Amino acid sequence: MFKAVINAEVLKDAIEAVSTLVDEAKFHITKDGISARAVDPANVAMVSFDLKAGAFESYNATDGEIGVDLTRMNDILGMTSKDDKIELNLNEETRKLEIRTGGLAYTLSLLDPTSIRKEPKVPKLELPAKIVLNGAELKRAVKAAEKVSDHMALGVVDKTFYVEAEGDLDKVRLDIPESSLISIQSTGNVRSLFSLDYLNDLAKSLGKAEKVSIDLGTDYPVNFTFNIAGGNGTVTYLLAPRIESE
Amino acid sequence: MFKAVINAEVLKDAIEAVSTLVDEAKFHITKDGISARAVDPANVAMVSFDLKAGAFESYNATDGEIGVDLTRMNDILGMTSKDDKIELNLNEETRKLEIRTGGLAYTLSLLDPTSIRKEPKVPKLELPAKIVLNGAELKRAVKAAEKVSDHMALGVVDKTFYVEAEGDLDKVRLDIPESSLISIQSTGNVRSLFSLDYLNDLAKSLGKAEKVSIDLGTDYPVNFTFNIAGGNGTVTYLLAPRIESE
Amino acid sequence: MFKAVINAEVLKDAIEAVSTLVDEAKFHITKDGISARAVDPANVAMVSFDLKAGAFESYNATDGEIGVDLTRMNDILGMTSKDDKIELNLNEETRKLEIRTGGLAYTLSLLDPTSIRKEPKVPKLELPAKIVLNGAELKRAVKAAEKVSDHMALGVVDKTFYVEAEGDLDKVRLDIPESSLISIQSTGNVRSLFSLDYLNDLAKSLGKAEKVSIDLGTDYPVNFTFNIAGGNGTVTYLLAPRIESE
Repeated sequence: MFKAVINAEVLKDAIEAVSTLVDEAKFHITKDGISARAVDPANVAMVSFDLKAGAFESYNATDGEIGVDLTRMNDILGMTSKDDKIELNLNEETRKLEIRTGGLAYTLSLLDPTSIRKEPKVPKLELPAKIVLNGAELKRAVKAAEKVSDHMALGVVDKTFYVEAEGDLDKVRLDIPESSLISIQSTGNVRSLFSLDYLNDLAKSLGKAEKVSIDLGTDYPVNFTFNIAGGNGTVTYLLAPRIESE
Repeated sequence: MFKAVINAEVLKDAIEAVSTLVDEAKFHITKDGISARAVDPANVAMVSFDLKAGAFESYNATDGEIGVDLTRMNDILGMTSKDDKIELNLNEETRKLEIRTGGLAYTLSLLDPTSIRKEPKVPKLELPAKIVLNGAELKRAVKAAEKVSDHMALGVVDKTFYVEAEGDLDKVRLDIPESSLISIQSTGNVRSLFSLDYLNDLAKSLGKAEKVSIDLGTDYPVNFTFNIAGGNGTVTYLLAPRIESE
Repeated sequence: MFKAVINAEVLKDAIEAVSTLVDEAKFHITKDGISARAVDPANVAMVSFDLKAGAFESYNATDGEIGVDLTRMNDILGMTSKDDKIELNLNEETRKLEIRTGGLAYTLSLLDPTSIRKEPKVPKLELPAKIVLNGAELKRAVKAAEKVSDHMALGVVDKTFYVEAEGDLDKVRLDIPESSLISIQSTGNVRSLFSLDYLNDLAKSLGKAEKVSIDLGTDYPVNFTFNIAGGNGTVTYLLAPRIESE
């Protein structure tokens, strides 16, 4: 059983955080909330997603699993306005999700959860640096880096966080000293290189977060963690590094 | 003779109501106003259009006929702002329409009216249901239906008006009870299926109307009627049904 | 040496005035300001550009020359907001231009000035008519003319400035009498025909100028002159005429 009411914008932001990496996902439903884990087709980026029952205006569920075509879901959510309420109701018999908003009733066919790509194991990483900053600032750096290159380094030198992108001709660098960060902890200098294709996709959701927590090492995957639904949910992205060719 | 002044937005909306179905049209001019009837190239939809002399700020005309390339006309109207005044003047000698607005003078070559497709006979239909509702609501239902299918049913069950679209996988339904309609009269339940391609085209103009009157039957054409120019004009669309395959 | 600070919008408008005609340009730097002259690849239009030291919030320079890829420069400037400050610093050693704004540091590789197309000689023309008008009005006429043709005449008849475009079917004409111009001086009637492709490109910058001064003759090149940077700079376009085929 799954029957819930949620604000349209909260649901949109939550779904978008996952759909930026995968087109379909398996959601685990429990009485405490909804969660999903997925890895992108190229195995470069992973998302862990948690939306607590508290994110909903009303929430009633027993344990279950649903497979959702996120593209079709986004299509439907695109019809809503940000203050709309959305009623979700899982019809156990037909295995369809009923989505009601403003008089409109959508019936969304669900995917067979066993047909969806196996969920990844999320590796536990112990990374030497942790930087917390405003998501919009991170997004701005990604957009600037895109102008000159297709990859970007994230690093820490002496409690200053930096992003750096170097193209064949031009270079972009942003230094953010400790005083302009929300916080920084680091047991030494670190630097890893990442694909801007992926960072740009992730930046859509990261850019909306007031606080993004970055766990960083040297030539190691990076973790981006941020809250959604006013703190009633969490998204973590894990992005594999690219090998620095220099 | 035809010499008139009209508000730019009123003229834009009027022309758009016709140009959504056909690229060129023959307009009948009399001392009382302008009218046109046209059928789309595939013979699926028909428009009847009336703009009374009262829609104009000034209007002087004797009986006549002009053939207008609506695409070129829209191009010109696209240059105007909504509060602009537009002066129209038919040059009988050159058979060109002079369009003046804000100092700019356009000279639009007219089409030979005999070269334009013959005007359709508008069938008089006696349809069992009449629903009056806000045009924006109808447009919203069309937009939602498009997400899942290429056709959409309009129907009435027990004084409730509904639209319904069913795709291979998903379904959309909107029920509007009598209390949320402007009015509904029906001598029984009705239901007809229509192409969303056409409904979407018509929705551009329908969506701007405060009141759209729908005449509906079962597997019968539908009539959409609404006012333009603040009540000084009327547009009626007639749309042929599609055969329900189920 | 070149080290300067300038408002982002002022720099954007200045660069755009040149980049609308050429992709790369050689800028001359002196202690009094920056200048450039360039001709478009087809030798139809020429731009002379001057930005005085007073246009900058701070300015320190010795004589020099830099070659700039304007497309890459525009890309970077596109990231800034209109109230941003931009710091420019020429690194003499690396021959790169450092561009700093809002914490971001771009390093732009410069082009070898000798690799850039030779600067044109700007002909001194004595033209019989001089019209001064608002740039937005000129832009509006260009946009209207584009709807019907690919070339446009500029002319003066009896102290009235006009633009006229004639397509195969339709015609656009705008007459601006002396009373609606900022000023007009003319020793007789003049008329020259120009390519709308070029006029449309130039209109991007012309349309932002409060005052555009037009020097016009009959079947002769036209000069458009306007101020940038609040009067601390000047742009002059010279556009070759097309031969009137009638």
